[in-house]
Amino acid sequence: MRVAGELRSHLVDIGSKIGGHFAGSLGAVELTVALHAVFDTPRDRIVWDIGHQAYGHKALTGRRDALWRIKRAEGPAGFLRRCESPYDSFGAGHAGTSISAALGMAEAAARSGDSRRVVAVIGDGGATAGMAFEALNHAGWLRRALRIVYSDNGMSIAPTVGGLARTGRVREYAEALGLRYLGPVDGHDLAALLPALTQLRDAKVPTLLHALTRKGNGFAPAEADPFRWHATTPFDRASGRAAKASAGAPSWTSCFADALANLADRDPRVIAITAAMPDGTGLDRFAARHPDRMYDVGIAEQHAVTFAAGLACEGLRPVCAIYSTFLQRALDQVVHDVALQELPVTFALDRAGLVGADGPTHHGAFDLAYLRAIPNLVIAAPRDENELQHLLATAIESGRPFVLRFPRGAAPGVPLDPEAKPIAIGRGALLRQGGDVALVALGKTVDAAMQAAERLAAVGIDAAVVDARFAKPIDVELLTWIGERTGRIVSVEDHAQAGGFGSALLEVVSEHAPGVRVRRLGLPDRFVDHGDTDAQWAAAGIDADGIAAAARALLEPRRA
Amino acid sequence: MRVAGELRSHLVDIGSKIGGHFAGSLGAVELTVALHAVFDTPRDRIVWDIGHQAYGHKALTGRRDALWRIKRAEGPAGFLRRCESPYDSFGAGHAGTSISAALGMAEAAARSGDSRRVVAVIGDGGATAGMAFEALNHAGWLRRALRIVYSDNGMSIAPTVGGLARTGRVREYAEALGLRYLGPVDGHDLAALLPALTQLRDAKVPTLLHALTRKGNGFAPAEADPFRWHATTPFDRASGRAAKASAGAPSWTSCFADALANLADRDPRVIAITAAMPDGTGLDRFAARHPDRMYDVGIAEQHAVTFAAGLACEGLRPVCAIYSTFLQRALDQVVHDVALQELPVTFALDRAGLVGADGPTHHGAFDLAYLRAIPNLVIAAPRDENELQHLLATAIESGRPFVLRFPRGAAPGVPLDPEAKPIAIGRGALLRQGGDVALVALGKTVDAAMQAAERLAAVGIDAAVVDARFAKPIDVELLTWIGERTGRIVSVEDHAQAGGFGSALLEVVSEHAPGVRVRRLGLPDRFVDHGDTDAQWAAAGIDADGIAAAARALLEPRRA
Repeated sequence: MRVAGELRSHLVDIGSKIGGHFAGSLGAVELTVALHAVFDTPRDRIVWDIGHQAYGHKALTGRRDALWRIKRAEGPAGFLRRCESPYDSFGAGHAGTSISAALGMAEAAARSGDSRRVVAVIGDGGATAGMAFEALNHAGWLRRALRIVYSDNGMSIAPTVGGLARTGRVREYAEALGLRYLGPVDGHDLAALLPALTQLRDAKVPTLLHALTRKGNGFAPAEADPFRWHATTPFDRASGRAAKASAGAPSWTSCFADALANLADRDPRVIAITAAMPDGTGLDRFAARHPDRMYDVGIAEQHAVTFAAGLACEGLRPVCAIYSTFLQRALDQVVHDVALQELPVTFALDRAGLVGADGPTHHGAFDLAYLRAIPNLVIAAPRDENELQHLLATAIESGRPFVLRFPRGAAPGVPLDPEAKPIAIGRGALLRQGGDVALVALGKTVDAAMQAAERLAAVGIDAAVVDARFAKPIDVELLTWIGERTGRIVSVEDHAQAGGFGSALLEVVSEHAPGVRVRRLGLPDRFVDHGDTDAQWAAAGIDADGIAAAARALLEPRRA
Repeated sequence: MRVAGELRSHLVDIGSKIGGHFAGSLGAVELTVALHAVFDTPRDRIVWDIGHQAYGHKALTGRRDALWRIKRAEGPAGFLRRCESPYDSFGAGHAGTSISAALGMAEAAARSGDSRRVVAVIGDGGATAGMAFEALNHAGWLRRALRIVYSDNGMSIAPTVGGLARTGRVREYAEALGLRYLGPVDGHDLAALLPALTQLRDAKVPTLLHALTRKGNGFAPAEADPFRWHATTPFDRASGRAAKASAGAPSWTSCFADALANLADRDPRVIAITAAMPDGTGLDRFAARHPDRMYDVGIAEQHAVTFAAGLACEGLRPVCAIYSTFLQRALDQVVHDVALQELPVTFALDRAGLVGADGPTHHGAFDLAYLRAIPNLVIAAPRDENELQHLLATAIESGRPFVLRFPRGAAPGVPLDPEAKPIAIGRGALLRQGGDVALVALGKTVDAAMQAAERLAAVGIDAAVVDARFAKPIDVELLTWIGERTGRIVSVEDHAQAGGFGSALLEVVSEHAPGVRVRRLGLPDRFVDHGDTDAQWAAAGIDADGIAAAARALLEPRRA
C-alpha cells in the first residue's frame, strides 16, 4: 500500500514537471506493484501491452530516477524495450501484441520444462486489436497455462469502442474462446488484487483475470478527464492546470483536420475514419463540425481500411486517418480491398517520417517503400499546409486510392488559399531555378532543401529545388528535364532510403536520364532511437546543412 | 430443392473434369440457393468471404457455363471480383474481410436512406482472422442492421483451429460482442434455412445466423475427407479417384518442408508455424516427422509472427511458413515485434512472385518492397532447391530475422548436397563469366537468366550471370565489380519493379558504379490477372526470351 502510494506520487511528480504518457500508468499503479509482488520477475515474464501504462513498472525495476529523462535521447524509452532492462521481457509500442508474445514465451517454457510463468497485461483498448483476439483464440485452443490480466478501464486513448465494451460481457467472451475467467476484481484494491493474482499465478489452464481499473486513478483531474490526461504537458500539481503551451504555427494534424472539415462542407460524400485516435489524427476537430461523419472503429486498422472500402463501394469518399506506423497493420487490406478494386479511399498518414520522442516503434519510416509497389495507388506528400489542403482535395475528387503522408509537429505556417483545389496528379513543382545541381525533395524536406539552396548560393553554387509532391506517379518529365539540365540530383526524404522516394527517382533516372549522378538522402538502414526530432534530422543528414553538404560533395570531382 | 440438386451436380461435374476449389462450394450449395432466393440480389449485397465457396454463386449469377474455364486466362476468376459481375459486390481472395466490407456497405446504405440489405457470409475458418473480430466488435457497437451468415463447417482448409472452434460457443461469442444470435440451423436443409434467412433479412440490429454446414456436402468422398478435397485435381466422378498426377520435379513447397525437417533433426530449437495452411506450406510434411514441433495458429498471420517472436525470446528458432501475399497481413508485426528486437525468426515466403491461376489476390509481388526497407532483416531467394536448403540453414543458424522467398510450382529438380550448410550472408554467386553485359537475377529468375545467356552466346554476346541470392544485404562488392567490368546490367526478378530487387541494385550502382547502365526487368505496375504462369512470365518479359531481348536492347547504341 505504501509502495503504491509512493509510486503514484512519484509518477504525478514526473508528469507535472516533464509531461508524458500519464493517466494509463496512474491507473496501473496497484496492478504493477501487485504483479511484481506475486510474480518472480524477471524470471517470470510480465508482458505489457503498448507500454503507456508501464512507467510504474520502470520505476519499480531500477529506473525510478531515470524516469525524469523518459523519452529523451539520454533517458529511457517511453515504451518497453528488451535492451533497456531484463524486466522488459518484450518490446512494445503498438497495441495488442502482448498475448501473442506471452503465449510464445509460455509455450517455449513448457517445451523446455521450465516452470517460469508468463503473464500478459492488456487493456480493454488494446484488446480491440484483431491480433489480440487471434492470440486469445489460439491460447484457448492450446490449453497451456497462459495468464492474462485484462485491465478494463473503458478507455483506449479515447473511450474504448466496440460491442464488447458496450455489453461488458468479458466473461462470456473469454469463456467462448476457451479461457478460464477470474474476476472481476477492483484493480486498485491491493487486498483484493493480491489474492486474485495469486490465483492467476497458480492457474493450470489459460486464464484471464478481469481487473477493473480507472485511468488516471488517484489524481482527481485525470480521473475526471482521462482522455485529456492520456498524455500531458507539464502541469501544476495542485490545480492540474497545464503550463501554457507556446502559441506557434498550427500542427500538421490540425491543418489536416480543418482542411478535411472544409472539404466535407462542400462534399457530402466525405467520411472520416480513425482507429481509436480521434485526438492524435485531429478527427475530434473534424467531428466537432461534422459529428455524424466520423467513425472511430477501435484499435482496428485492418477493419478500418476494409470498412472504408465498403463505404467507397457505395459511392462515399472515406478518408482513413491513420499514423504511418499504424498503417503497417493494414497493408494487406490496402492491397487486397482498396488498390486491387480501385476504390476511392484516401489514406491520411500522419506522423510520417521521424517522430522524435516516441522512438523506433512510432517512426513512420517505411510507408513509401511498402506502398510504392502497389499498383493503382497515388502517393503524395505536401510541403506545407496549403499544399496539404490542395492535395487532400485532389485525393477526394480523384476517385482513386490515394495516400497523403505528412509529418508530426508544427506545419510551416504559410497562409492558406481561400479554397482547396485539385492539382494535377503526378506533377511536381520547380520552386527554384539553378544549373549546378538539383535538390529534389518530398514533403517536409522541401523546406530544408530551400534553405540548403540559400546556403549553396552563398558559396556560389546555383541549386535548383524541386518539390516532387508525388512519390507515385512520379513526375518523370520534370525530373528527367532537371536531371539533364543539372547533371546532378540530390534527393531528400524523411523516410528510409531503401525503396523510398530516392529509389523511385533512381528508377526514373536509370530509364530516362542515365548519365545523371544521384545522391540520395534519407533515413539510415537502422532503427532510429527516441530523441529530439531536429537532432534526428541532423544525424540523418536531411536538414539544410546535410543537404548542402551532400550537394557540395556531389559537385566535387570524383575520386579516381 | 431441385435447383440445389442440379447446382451440386454441376459443381461435381466441373470439379471432376477440371479440378479447382471444390469442397467449400459443395458445402454452400443450399446456402447459396437460399440467399439468392431470400435476398433481392444484386440490389441487396451478398458479401462472400475468401471466395472458395462461391462457385455456386457464380453459377447462379450468369456464369454457369463459364465455370468450365474458371481460373484460366479466358475464364472467370477463382474468387469474387467486382469487375466480373454486379452480383460480386466485393472482391475476395484473402480471409476475414467480408464483415468489414459489408458493414461499410450497410452504413453507406443507412446514411443515404437506402433500404438495401447487406449480408456477409463468413466461415468459421475465416472468422479466426483478427479483422473479422474487429468487424464484429464494431458492428456490435454501431447497432446497425448488418446481417451475417456464419457458415460453420469446422474447417478452414484444414480443421479450424481456435478456442472458439473447440468450445463451439458461437452464441456467447456473438452476444458478448453485441450481436443478436440466430440458430443454429442446418445449412443443408432448405426448409429450415429459408425461414431462418428470412428472419435474418428482416433483422433490425446486427445479427448473426449460425448455419451448420458440411464441407463437401453431397459428395461422399469429400464429406469423408474435406481437407483433401478443399481443392482438387480432376477425378473420376463415380469412385472419387483422382487422375494420376504426372511425376515431375518436386515442388518448392515440399523441398522446403523436407529441408526444414532435416534441419529440425539436428537442431532442437527449430519450430514451425503455419497460419491455417499446413498443406499449402508443406508443414504437414514437416509435422509427419516432427509432430510436436508444428503450430497451426489459425488464419492469424499477425499472431503467428508475434507468437514466433515470443518463442524466439526464449531461445527457440521459429520458422513462420506464410505465403508472400499473406505476410502482407503481418507487416507491422515483422517490423515491431521481430526486426526491431532483432529476434531470430525465419520467414519462409512460399508463393513469392506470380502464382498463375489464383490471380491478383494471390500473387506474391510486393514482399521485397515492403520488407527491404526494414532494418535488421536479411532477405534471400534461392535459385534452386539445393540453395534453398543451404539458405534455410543459414537463416536458422544466423540468429537473425531472416526472410526466404521462393515461388509456387516445381523446383528445378537439381541434386541435393548431403548436408545443408550455412553460406555467407550477403554474398551472391557469379555463375557465368562474360564481358558484354551482366544478367543479375534473383531466385527462380536465375534459371531464365542462364538460358538467356545461352541464347545471347549464340548471337555472339558474352553475358555474365550473377545469382544475387540476397536482396538484403545485397552483394555490393560483386555487383560493383561486375557492373564495372561489363558496363551494363540487366536485373531480373519475379516481383514488382517498383522498390524491388532492381531498385536495390540501382541504389548500389548509383553509389558505387555510377556510370553503369541498368535495365530492370520485373512485374509491371498493374495487377496481373489470373492465368498461366509461363504466359505471365513471358508477358512481364522475365523469361529467357525477355531477358535476352532486354540485354540486346541495352547493348544497342543509345538513340540520340
